[in-house]
Amino acid sequence: MAEILKGAPAAKALNAETLQRVQDLRASGVVPKLAILRVGERPDDVAYETAAMKRCASLEIEVQRVLLPTDCGQDELLSAIDALNRDESVHGVLMFRPLPKHLDENAACERLHPSKDVDGITSGSMAKVYSGVGAGFAPCTAQAVLELLRHYEIPLQGKRVAVIGRSLVIGRPAAMLLMGENATVTLCHSKTENLSEITRSADVVVAALGKAETIGADDLRAGQTVVDVGISFSEEKQCLVGDVDFDAASQIVAALSPVPGGVGSLTTAILASHVAQSAEQSE
Amino acid sequence: MAEILKGAPAAKALNAETLQRVQDLRASGVVPKLAILRVGERPDDVAYETAAMKRCASLEIEVQRVLLPTDCGQDELLSAIDALNRDESVHGVLMFRPLPKHLDENAACERLHPSKDVDGITSGSMAKVYSGVGAGFAPCTAQAVLELLRHYEIPLQGKRVAVIGRSLVIGRPAAMLLMGENATVTLCHSKTENLSEITRSADVVVAALGKAETIGADDLRAGQTVVDVGISFSEEKQCLVGDVDFDAASQIVAALSPVPGGVGSLTTAILASHVAQSAEQSE
Repeated sequence: MAEILKGAPAAKALNAETLQRVQDLRASGVVPKLAILRVGERPDDVAYETAAMKRCASLEIEVQRVLLPTDCGQDELLSAIDALNRDESVHGVLMFRPLPKHLDENAACERLHPSKDVDGITSGSMAKVYSGVGAGFAPCTAQAVLELLRHYEIPLQGKRVAVIGRSLVIGRPAAMLLMGENATVTLCHSKTENLSEITRSADVVVAALGKAETIGADDLRAGQTVVDVGISFSEEKQCLVGDVDFDAASQIVAALSPVPGGVGSLTTAILASHVAQSAEQSE
Repeated sequence: MAEILKGAPAAKALNAETLQRVQDLRASGVVPKLAILRVGERPDDVAYETAAMKRCASLEIEVQRVLLPTDCGQDELLSAIDALNRDESVHGVLMFRPLPKHLDENAACERLHPSKDVDGITSGSMAKVYSGVGAGFAPCTAQAVLELLRHYEIPLQGKRVAVIGRSLVIGRPAAMLLMGENATVTLCHSKTENLSEITRSADVVVAALGKAETIGADDLRAGQTVVDVGISFSEEKQCLVGDVDFDAASQIVAALSPVPGGVGSLTTAILASHVAQSAEQSE
């Protein structure tokens, strides 16, 4: 039976570190502050906002919400971003996406200054993740994959990692971050042939396809670590499931992150740590 | 005996395409122009400049040289870049690197507008290569790897590619471009364990380690395509050699690019095509 890589203990450890950093910042006169920019009232956004606000409150990070109506104009949105860029008391900005369709999301992302881009949505942050140089942050979920592996001391240097999924939110940035830890990363995607062969030859498998319970017994072998980033609602089971068939995988591999309760439990902790880092860099 | 993937025929085909594009641009009143910004008189820079000027002349692309002395100041350099950014008649800028040590190379790169960054040195170009979105270009050598494979109609979709070397000039951008062609890419580097196993399981191997004749018989198998991006001077052989042991590899694999006369023969053709593309985008 696989070791279960729960997110909560990793989040708890990271939060303790972040709280210390925030208290040090406050002692030197800097109050870390996250701005949340939300257009409309999408339930997913509101739910994550509530979780992020609770996390920040527990870590003594201030939160400022900027709420715009669903029918807000592009100019109104850009003005709000400009104001947050200018406001030196704001260290990080979380802008929920997707934006309503009438808005130019790409232009909005690009307006944000990369130094405040704590969820990695600007091209500046992308260049940072890709090159290792410059201002910006990785997307929180991609960073959460790394943090989970770090917490459970899974070796990465020189090891083979298969990342399944090449999105800009998870797959691609996770691949670059893992390479930054000197892993040998294979980036797999919907056009990959012989996926099972590739995943079976990896030491670590990161599943971020966004397809429920797709990675199963045939794709895995003994000794592996599997991080499941997927999250879907199973009509059949009436519960949340990941991209990995948990019951099958847990009989085979050495370590496996659950869904829910795995990577997802770490995202607000990562967000808070990014705000602290941004505040430190602003000093 | 392997098919030899010579660069010259691929360059010739690409140059014919570029010439047509340039002539179409000129017919519509746009004269494509490359600016070459060179600080000092490094022999490598001067040699490449001569080749680039000759290539551009043959393709009816204008070239403007901006030559600064080795002891030029940072302000002088940045002013020169600003002037090229402002000049609407300039469509691409090639700035030679490394710059003399007293200059801030990163700041100079970032000053250039990504839309004129025809050799992919700005963070904007890096974000473009990584994300597929935005302004900018891939570094010419990385693009040359793709062009060589395209010219010889080597299948990439769904195929396994091992890229050896993770530099920002070749390995990383080549990996992203190959993924853009739906290849499944493994990015290998100095910390990779069991490199031979990985390269042998690939359909295409791109060698960009920068270590003379390092990839040999043990790393390769029948049926593969090998692109050799390395270029070193062998004291023993008194000639230029690649990262691949050509004599050994050519007995094993299906197709192999030579050094010299492979990827390197394509870089000025790629540079010229980027200038034409930038001029088209400026219309």
